Amino acid sequence: MATTAPSIADSCLAAKRASRTLATLGSEVRDAALEAIAVALEQRTEEILEANAKDLEAARDGDYSAAFLDKLALSERRVDAMIAGVRTIAALSDPVGVVTEGRRLPNGLEVRKVQVPLGVVAVVYEARPNVTIDAAALCLKSGNAVVLRGSSAAARSNAILAEIAIGATRDAGLADGSIGLVAGGREDIAELATQNGLVDLIIPRGGEGLKAALKGVATVPVIYAASGNCHVYVEASAEPESARQIVLNAKLQRPGVCNAAETLLVHADIAPDFLPATLAALADAGVTLHGDDRARAAAPGARMDSASEQDWDTEYLALELAVAVVDGTEQAIEHINAHGSGHSEAIVTRDLAAAQAFQLGVDAACVYVNASTRFTDGQEYGMGAEIGNSTQKLHARGPIGLRELCTYKYLVEGSGQIRPD
Amino acid sequence: MATTAPSIADSCLAAKRASRTLATLGSEVRDAALEAIAVALEQRTEEILEANAKDLEAARDGDYSAAFLDKLALSERRVDAMIAGVRTIAALSDPVGVVTEGRRLPNGLEVRKVQVPLGVVAVVYEARPNVTIDAAALCLKSGNAVVLRGSSAAARSNAILAEIAIGATRDAGLADGSIGLVAGGREDIAELATQNGLVDLIIPRGGEGLKAALKGVATVPVIYAASGNCHVYVEASAEPESARQIVLNAKLQRPGVCNAAETLLVHADIAPDFLPATLAALADAGVTLHGDDRARAAAPGARMDSASEQDWDTEYLALELAVAVVDGTEQAIEHINAHGSGHSEAIVTRDLAAAQAFQLGVDAACVYVNASTRFTDGQEYGMGAEIGNSTQKLHARGPIGLRELCTYKYLVEGSGQIRPD
Repeated sequence: MATTAPSIADSCLAAKRASRTLATLGSEVRDAALEAIAVALEQRTEEILEANAKDLEAARDGDYSAAFLDKLALSERRVDAMIAGVRTIAALSDPVGVVTEGRRLPNGLEVRKVQVPLGVVAVVYEARPNVTIDAAALCLKSGNAVVLRGSSAAARSNAILAEIAIGATRDAGLADGSIGLVAGGREDIAELATQNGLVDLIIPRGGEGLKAALKGVATVPVIYAASGNCHVYVEASAEPESARQIVLNAKLQRPGVCNAAETLLVHADIAPDFLPATLAALADAGVTLHGDDRARAAAPGARMDSASEQDWDTEYLALELAVAVVDGTEQAIEHINAHGSGHSEAIVTRDLAAAQAFQLGVDAACVYVNASTRFTDGQEYGMGAEIGNSTQKLHARGPIGLRELCTYKYLVEGSGQIRPD
Repeated sequence: MATTAPSIADSCLAAKRASRTLATLGSEVRDAALEAIAVALEQRTEEILEANAKDLEAARDGDYSAAFLDKLALSERRVDAMIAGVRTIAALSDPVGVVTEGRRLPNGLEVRKVQVPLGVVAVVYEARPNVTIDAAALCLKSGNAVVLRGSSAAARSNAILAEIAIGATRDAGLADGSIGLVAGGREDIAELATQNGLVDLIIPRGGEGLKAALKGVATVPVIYAASGNCHVYVEASAEPESARQIVLNAKLQRPGVCNAAETLLVHADIAPDFLPATLAALADAGVTLHGDDRARAAAPGARMDSASEQDWDTEYLALELAVAVVDGTEQAIEHINAHGSGHSEAIVTRDLAAAQAFQLGVDAACVYVNASTRFTDGQEYGMGAEIGNSTQKLHARGPIGLRELCTYKYLVEGSGQIRPD
């Protein structure tokens, strides 16, 4: 660890300077820097685990949950996964320099729209030290300088990881400032979030508290990782067994993540056949159920309390599910657009018109027909790694991958063209 | 004019409701609505001119400049241009439903990334009543509902234009709320800019005062129309006559707009040959010149005062130009990245390496080689009409056309896929 940490403004200025040269480097140089990080992590795994052990020791004396300590903890296996992650990112195709569009104008000007790095991306994160390496690799791969701000509980782990990455990238010829680590409390987040002209984007990776802290103060652009109030709608024509599998998967496969289902909507015609066994299976798996009157009437034997208005708006992130019966696809779409968070929404149906209406009418980042909402993920979509998921509509919607860490510019080549009056 | 105007929140709610059906309409319906607006404007031109005459009369009693009154004024010719503009927008290709990417995943899921409307776009504008129709047409064409907020000086003109457009779109079968007009002062802008969940984007079209008013209060996404501190860099190998034409065009063709040049950078090797005649031509055209010491030494006879540090950062929007001599392309790029606003930047050169370095190194929306900066324009780029120009890096950079009024969603179709553990 450096004895005197540079100020946040200085770190951001160094990052901006580095970003100018990063933007001009070929992918070979950036990929070689990532490989250098991977090698250095291999060589210094012991040091990483020692630093992490000290963080863990200090955290055990503090008031942290077991879940927090688990997120904080590194092991040889977790470091290996981090290293494999860096190499996976290095192997992805380069988003920088991709010409997404182009034409020759009537006056002979050649216009190309080209993907270029954003510049400086700041990532603010909690607990998990692996984000230090993960975020740095994604940003460098996309030609961006990165300013990392981890939590104080992981200070020693983050410091050694950043030191290793900074040293490796410097040896690989990247400019100083390509990776920066800043420390500090909530007031420092505010300082980071107001570095207009230096920081081009902030991505918070953490809980609602972190997002709220940013929302109040940020003047630089922020992409907020999404909350997901996701729905599965079982339409009247759905194949019941497939519908049941999709509902169980969407709720149970990993209940604590944003693309898990939080509300089940069922068409009235299929509810009496579909709901009893499905709700029993959910309850057997430990799911607490909250149903509207029609759902309770359709499955009178289910262990299900009465849903309140609030249930439709709640992202449980737990073994808990709201259940409602609707009269048709239109009503399902209305419910989803009124209560959903625009993340991932699924219809199960054999009716083409219902599938089409659902796809057209639901206002969400990812709309599924006959598949689980759990597929919303950059890796699953073939985009490579992701740094989060967005429910915003501007810039990035859905998985935030390498391309979403880029902007574009228009390159226009002429032979002396001037604009006529 | 309605006797009781609906509240801003009510207008935005109506717009959000309308946006749900607008998003599902085929382009035929939206295009027919635009044609209906054009026809209604033709039929009711007299009423428009009468209302505008009243606005003008009231404004003449107020403390407004001649330039403001000119912007406010409508004539038969200007209404005809408005009508032609609506038909031009209707004839553009539909941005909604365009599949920009797609693939079949290994598990058989079919993923499509599809352009969809943002939802509700609010446009806040000053003086020019034609923006009422222009903005409405662009938003409807891209499947968005629009909430218009014009200036009080144009209240009567905007009211009759909006009434005509609202009536025509209603007759054409669009939902109520597809077009809304709200009035009021600065505090109402704040209300509009905080309609989270109802307004998906605000675009201010006006001066710095309007932008500043929004910056302090907006919690919904805003795309700020750009200010442009644009440069022309004449490299050592430039063909002098072509360079002179580009400099004169970039400064003189329309000095009051954001893509006009504000600083001329000249390579030291060509400065003594290039500057004297070029600066004389600029001065003859009425341009006030501010030069650094080297520029003044290279053109000792030029009418040019000494540039201050502030000149490099000033967007004159007038017949005024800063001039500096640089030692090479790298120094030119550094100057531009330090002082430019990231709008439009040009190099004039016959050296391929210099052109490439400039394109790669300059961080701006539009980078020109051997062409005037004045070409930055959605129309010129073949994008059709534009609603403004962005120097932001997220979502829209450069001309904001129909596509930039869209977001996207992922449509994923399966046959019962669930995510394995």
